[in-house]
Amino acid sequence: MTYRAPLKDMQFVMNELAGLEQISQLPGFEEATPDTAQAVLEEAAKFNEQVLAPLNRAGDLNPSSWKDGVVTTTAGFKDAFRQFGEGGWQGVLHPSEFEGQGLPKLVATPCIEMLNSANLSFALCPLLTDGAIEALLTAGSDAQKATFLPKLISGEWTGTMNLTEPQAGSDLAAVRTRAEPQGDGTFKVFGTKIFITYGEHDMADNIVHLVLARTPTAPEGVKGISLFIVPKFKVNADGSLGERNDVQCVSIEHKLGIKASPTAVLQFGDHGGAIGTLVGEENRGLEYMFIMMNSARFAVGMQGIAISERAYQQAVAYAKDRVQSRPVDGSAREAVTIIHHPDVKRMLMTMRALIEGARAVAYVAAAASDVAHQHPDEAVRRQNMALYEFLVPVVKGWSTELSIDVTSLGVQVHGGMGFIEETGAAQHYRDARILPIYEGTTAIQANDLVGRKTVRDGGAVARAICAKIAETEAELGKHGGASFKAVQAQLKQGRESLEAVVQFVVENTKGDPNAVFAGSVPYLKLCGIVLSGWQLGRAMLAADAKRAEDPAFYDAKIATAHFFGQHILSQASSLRAAVVEGAEPINAMTADQF
Amino acid sequence: MTYRAPLKDMQFVMNELAGLEQISQLPGFEEATPDTAQAVLEEAAKFNEQVLAPLNRAGDLNPSSWKDGVVTTTAGFKDAFRQFGEGGWQGVLHPSEFEGQGLPKLVATPCIEMLNSANLSFALCPLLTDGAIEALLTAGSDAQKATFLPKLISGEWTGTMNLTEPQAGSDLAAVRTRAEPQGDGTFKVFGTKIFITYGEHDMADNIVHLVLARTPTAPEGVKGISLFIVPKFKVNADGSLGERNDVQCVSIEHKLGIKASPTAVLQFGDHGGAIGTLVGEENRGLEYMFIMMNSARFAVGMQGIAISERAYQQAVAYAKDRVQSRPVDGSAREAVTIIHHPDVKRMLMTMRALIEGARAVAYVAAAASDVAHQHPDEAVRRQNMALYEFLVPVVKGWSTELSIDVTSLGVQVHGGMGFIEETGAAQHYRDARILPIYEGTTAIQANDLVGRKTVRDGGAVARAICAKIAETEAELGKHGGASFKAVQAQLKQGRESLEAVVQFVVENTKGDPNAVFAGSVPYLKLCGIVLSGWQLGRAMLAADAKRAEDPAFYDAKIATAHFFGQHILSQASSLRAAVVEGAEPINAMTADQF
Repeated sequence: MTYRAPLKDMQFVMNELAGLEQISQLPGFEEATPDTAQAVLEEAAKFNEQVLAPLNRAGDLNPSSWKDGVVTTTAGFKDAFRQFGEGGWQGVLHPSEFEGQGLPKLVATPCIEMLNSANLSFALCPLLTDGAIEALLTAGSDAQKATFLPKLISGEWTGTMNLTEPQAGSDLAAVRTRAEPQGDGTFKVFGTKIFITYGEHDMADNIVHLVLARTPTAPEGVKGISLFIVPKFKVNADGSLGERNDVQCVSIEHKLGIKASPTAVLQFGDHGGAIGTLVGEENRGLEYMFIMMNSARFAVGMQGIAISERAYQQAVAYAKDRVQSRPVDGSAREAVTIIHHPDVKRMLMTMRALIEGARAVAYVAAAASDVAHQHPDEAVRRQNMALYEFLVPVVKGWSTELSIDVTSLGVQVHGGMGFIEETGAAQHYRDARILPIYEGTTAIQANDLVGRKTVRDGGAVARAICAKIAETEAELGKHGGASFKAVQAQLKQGRESLEAVVQFVVENTKGDPNAVFAGSVPYLKLCGIVLSGWQLGRAMLAADAKRAEDPAFYDAKIATAHFFGQHILSQASSLRAAVVEGAEPINAMTADQF
Repeated sequence: MTYRAPLKDMQFVMNELAGLEQISQLPGFEEATPDTAQAVLEEAAKFNEQVLAPLNRAGDLNPSSWKDGVVTTTAGFKDAFRQFGEGGWQGVLHPSEFEGQGLPKLVATPCIEMLNSANLSFALCPLLTDGAIEALLTAGSDAQKATFLPKLISGEWTGTMNLTEPQAGSDLAAVRTRAEPQGDGTFKVFGTKIFITYGEHDMADNIVHLVLARTPTAPEGVKGISLFIVPKFKVNADGSLGERNDVQCVSIEHKLGIKASPTAVLQFGDHGGAIGTLVGEENRGLEYMFIMMNSARFAVGMQGIAISERAYQQAVAYAKDRVQSRPVDGSAREAVTIIHHPDVKRMLMTMRALIEGARAVAYVAAAASDVAHQHPDEAVRRQNMALYEFLVPVVKGWSTELSIDVTSLGVQVHGGMGFIEETGAAQHYRDARILPIYEGTTAIQANDLVGRKTVRDGGAVARAICAKIAETEAELGKHGGASFKAVQAQLKQGRESLEAVVQFVVENTKGDPNAVFAGSVPYLKLCGIVLSGWQLGRAMLAADAKRAEDPAFYDAKIATAHFFGQHILSQASSLRAAVVEGAEPINAMTADQF
């Protein structure tokens, strides 16, 4: 078994930190009881452990390949994707009226984590399809919904997001792809899109490309972008597949990792124009795209946690198996398994603490999204939506940044064997490297956190979070234990650092944007650390209350929180210095001085 | 040009921080004047930029390959190695009596940096050969020296270090390779060695394997290990090559990076025994091996700096070329090159500050080694040897750990293009990953730092360094500038953190080894950060004094030191917490709880 779903850890977070009980009492989620959630997770675990996890290495060894416009995925992927669709896994989160399971995001999120732990390259196809589904649910016409949603949700068809162009990168203002109205409600689309994940493949009958393009009358910049559906095969009125559309995969990339996932260059309209239909209103494409992106960004954050979990499991297994050197404390005369060496334990604890902290923040964010959508009280919905939107760039940015460190530690635990490709640890390290880049780099997440999520509301959401953190500090303080007091102290300095940084950001973004944006990524990391530390502080209290039920499990939760406090949360004051006092030497440098 | 030697930066460190002027006044180094050093560096730059740097990518695309025991290196490597030998580059550091150039380590070190920046995979062959040369210089007989040293120093032959065995890893006590005396002064060697860098290749006429093995009467453990020379081709009395020895390369590894460098599994003695001769005395092999390893560990630390410098240069070039998005401060209406975006500058400053700090520490260490070997006063020699030996695990551990972060940032600066192999940034990221592993993992360096380098002398060397740092703090304080005061404050808290940690290590290693060794790597990182910050503080003062000569260059040095203070040195208190207060939750965890 190369991956075992950490069901107990997941359920601990869902129940004790993210409030599954309360989520299941929201209108529409009545069936999502903790028992049902557990059953869903167990089924997901089985599928991901048995079907997808074993294909992960094969995907690295035998990546997707391109020939004459046709992309052939790794042997086994097509059949696995059929099983994935038949199992209903694409639809976990999506409405039952379109054949989804309609479960809360809080239940879907561990399923997504498992999927990505099992096979990151495979999981990208459902991830992008989810984004397309979200966009159509939000902005699609009834006809578009009826045509595309059931097929996407059943896994018969898949979806893509077509944003990036060669000259544009992350700068959507520079999008040049054209969409010309044909007078019959359709458009002809012309242009080149790059970095299109699963832009071409052989796992589904059709591929539904969602494409950003400009109509002839569109204004310049981001306000002139519209969103179009351009299916690989045109769809007849009765829903059956028609002829091939004018979109060609001209190449796929040779990448550092996630090699099984084809990254396509797509050429639209080289043979007369690719036929597409407008989604929602003209020139509102960016807005719809942000809906897809928020969903996708959260999911990429989950990828960071997922690949980290897999790397952790592999490192633990190796450390329990590999015998080398006697223990430093002289407790054995023979060489021992390396998990008994303090630095190996320190590395594993670092991996574990980062993962558990990030997982808790992400699941809590998922619960906030559920409340934001389903709670009867509009004020509660609004408050939770603001919280969720604040957390999305943190989940995306922080969970993916830490995945670099965690997968790197995964290699390090293996010593020289980690550098040998056969071992498999190196694949996680390579695969993870894309995560802080795609769906918006960490800098783009950080700019979102500064601009839309902090400055726009004058820091209100951030401060409300800090007030909640102070409550957890007080609870930790009430507990007599030294480790609880230690975490309290670290959480306090972390929260105070965060407050100081939020103040700095709110006060200076308008007047001195360079000073603030030079520290936007350290601000994001500070949020990641302090929010993780907060959740692990809560976990520590919850574990303490339940300790008698399973001392080994809950003591490990307490030790993990304690470790996080001293080794990771303690970095908060340095990040404060980086933001509040660290911009001057950055802005002092001219381009020529580099 | 894919790499340009940073000669001006190197000379700044050599002259202003490492005291080249004083080194050139040591007996034996009279010819190594700053002018001569500059000429040597310029020649080295030319060779490395023009011959080796262009082969770096080819080595990744077309790695060394194995067939029927024969290893063929990347096209171009053999000719480049011939030029390397003819240029005298293997001999820069080595004594003129064996055809070396006899230059100080302070002058050889930038040459080694350039070599590794230009082509890390190539550079490993000279790196291991240097180790073999050092061992023979220290412990070889006159006959062995005469036979092997001139050939190794001229680059006609190369050397290897054979430590690791499949069951042993870093644990040399577990070495099983046997050496049976033949009665004629030679031994027959039997065993398997793995991870042997350039253990087989086609770039030289002979390969001189230095092999750890046990004689039949040897005691168990590390006290029963002897060192043998086992050449690939036996050497006749007249120095000409004889018949093939019984050592076979049975395979090479498929690795994450440094693919051009063949990592061999060597089988000794499968056909009757590989003929070898003893180096030095029986059962003192470990001692000699440590000489090779100290040399090699310092050199691997330089590899960390070198690959970081190359990744930095590539990222700067991309950032100056790639146009994307308008500036956040509204200073331009069009998209600008990304080097104008504050977070890109922050990433480049992080890379640059880490590199410049680590380079300064390494060059200062090299100068200490020169004084330790050549100073007429024995007390000065002893003091400098202690300093150098303290610095070796820091240079190795810290410079290689940071190379992971720096090469990762190099990918990040490129955005999506960084993940595409054609771009080349990913190669540095893959190549760097071995550096904190081979020649002793970071944990092994950290254990050396704790045990041999801190506890053994009761923390005397560490405290002497701290006293010197306090002097630099005072000088920074005398300067009126705000940035100087800021660095002073950060350096003070860094130094105080280091003092607290040294105290903790000295007081607890014997009584509670698990508590200390759980924090040994954070201690090493703290040393790396504080010593780098110290050297950059000195650099700041030196740059200030020379500012008028070249304001753009020296202002950048001042800004880099200032940046290092706020963004990196500020992490010291967190590392203090990790060591002094962070062991308990690590040691609380049993193996089963992971």
